[in-house]
Amino acid sequence: MIRVAIVGTGNVGNHFAKAFSKTKDVRIVQVINSRIDSLEADQDLNIQKDGLLKRENPDLYILAVSDDAIALVSQKLKNTKSLVVHTSGSVAMKVLPKAVRRGVFYPLQTFSKKSEIDFAQIPICIEAERKEDLELLRDLAGQLSDEVHEVPSEKRAHLHLAAVFANNFTNHLYHVAGEICESQNLPFSLLEPLIQETAKKMTVLTSREAQTGPARRGDIATISKHLDLLTNKEHREIYSLLSQAIQKTYGEKL
Amino acid sequence: MIRVAIVGTGNVGNHFAKAFSKTKDVRIVQVINSRIDSLEADQDLNIQKDGLLKRENPDLYILAVSDDAIALVSQKLKNTKSLVVHTSGSVAMKVLPKAVRRGVFYPLQTFSKKSEIDFAQIPICIEAERKEDLELLRDLAGQLSDEVHEVPSEKRAHLHLAAVFANNFTNHLYHVAGEICESQNLPFSLLEPLIQETAKKMTVLTSREAQTGPARRGDIATISKHLDLLTNKEHREIYSLLSQAIQKTYGEKL
Repeated sequence: MIRVAIVGTGNVGNHFAKAFSKTKDVRIVQVINSRIDSLEADQDLNIQKDGLLKRENPDLYILAVSDDAIALVSQKLKNTKSLVVHTSGSVAMKVLPKAVRRGVFYPLQTFSKKSEIDFAQIPICIEAERKEDLELLRDLAGQLSDEVHEVPSEKRAHLHLAAVFANNFTNHLYHVAGEICESQNLPFSLLEPLIQETAKKMTVLTSREAQTGPARRGDIATISKHLDLLTNKEHREIYSLLSQAIQKTYGEKL
Repeated sequence: MIRVAIVGTGNVGNHFAKAFSKTKDVRIVQVINSRIDSLEADQDLNIQKDGLLKRENPDLYILAVSDDAIALVSQKLKNTKSLVVHTSGSVAMKVLPKAVRRGVFYPLQTFSKKSEIDFAQIPICIEAERKEDLELLRDLAGQLSDEVHEVPSEKRAHLHLAAVFANNFTNHLYHVAGEICESQNLPFSLLEPLIQETAKKMTVLTSREAQTGPARRGDIATISKHLDLLTNKEHREIYSLLSQAIQKTYGEKL
C-alpha cells in the first residue's frame, strides 16, 4: 500500500485524488485544501492549521499546486521524511528543498473540470534523486497508467514546451476558427468532425503525411484569397506565419 | 435511385465512391479515371476516349478534382443535361460553366488514403442555383450524412478558411511539437493522448473554457524559459505570435 498526501485541490489534484481512489494499492491519507493551492507568494501560510505534517505520515506528498507556489509550499515540508514530488512540466526538480527526498510526477495531459480523464493511456513522467524513490514513483504511476517514463528535468522542460504547441496553441487555432465561423453565423459544431479527424490521424500518420491544404501544395491563389477574407489583423498574422512555415517545411517557394 | 458519375480518383473521389457504394439509393454509373484528376491546365484532354458523356447519363457529375482543374474539367461537360457539382471548399460555384445546371457538394473533412472515414457525422455543405437541384443534393447528401447544410459560396469560403486553421495549421503545430520531441530523443507518441484530449475537449467545452498554459495565465517566466529553449527561429516566431495572441484574447498584459 502506498500512502499518498495530495496538496492542492485544483484540477490536477482532483483528478489524481479520483484516480488514486479507484486503485487498490494506493491510499490517500490526506488532501490539503485549496487555500494552499491559491496561496500568494508572500502569504504567511499556517500549514499547521491545515494539518500538514500532523496526521498519518504519507509515503509521499504530491504537490498539485501552481508552478509559482511549488517552492514556497515545499519549503513548509522541508522537515518531512516522506518523498516530496511536484507535478509540473516546466519546473525543475531542484526547485524543491535540498533537504527533502525530492522528485517529479508529471502527467502529460490537460485537465479540465468538465472533461473525464482515463489515466490508463496518459504518459506519467517521473524523476527522483534516489533509486528507491524512483522505484516508489514507478510503482505509483504504474497503478494509474501503462505509460511510465523516466524523464529528467531538462528533457521534461522540452516535452512541456512541445505540449504547449500541441495543446495550448492548437486550442487557440480552434478559437480563431470559431471566431471565423461566428462572423458568418456558422455553428462551430460544423468543424468538430474535422478537429477530431485531424487529431485521430496522428495515431496512423505522421504530421508530414497528414499535411494538406493551400500552403502544403503551394497554392498561392487560395492563400491570397484567404488573406483577403481575414479582416482581423491577428488572424491574418497567424495565417501568414503558419502558411510560410508550412511552405518552408515542404519546400514550396513563396 | 440517384445515378452518380464521379470525376477524379484521388482521395476525395475514392472516399465518395466507397461511401456511395454502401448506400441503397445511390448508384455509381461511372468513375472517370485519374488522368483527368491529374491533368495540367494546358493539356488537351480527350474526354471522349475516357467515355465521359458516352455511357449511361448520370443525374449528376461530382467533380472530385483539384481546385485548379475544376474550371477546365467542367468545360468538357458544358453540353450535359445532368447537374454538375464540384467538391471544393474554396472555389465558388460560378467557376462552373454558366450553361450547365451547377452546384457544390462540399464535405467538410480531411481525407487521407490511410484513414477510414465515417461519413455519418461529416457536415456536407450543398449549394445549387435551382431549387430541384438543391433537393437532389439534399437527398444525395442525406444518404451519407445526418449533417446536411445549405451554404452559399461566400460563407463556404469562410468555412474553408476556418478549416485551414482547425486542420492544416493545427497539423503543423503537431509537426513542430514532433520536432521538439525528436530533438530530445523523446517519442512523439508521448503527445498523442494530449492531442486526442485537446480535440475531444471541443465537444464539451468552448475553446475559451479549454484554454490553459503559460500564455493564458500570463506566466511570463515560463514563456521566457520556453523562448530560451527554442533554438529553431521559425518555432520561436510561432511561439511568440501565438502566445501574444492568447494573451491578447484573455486580457493578460505582455
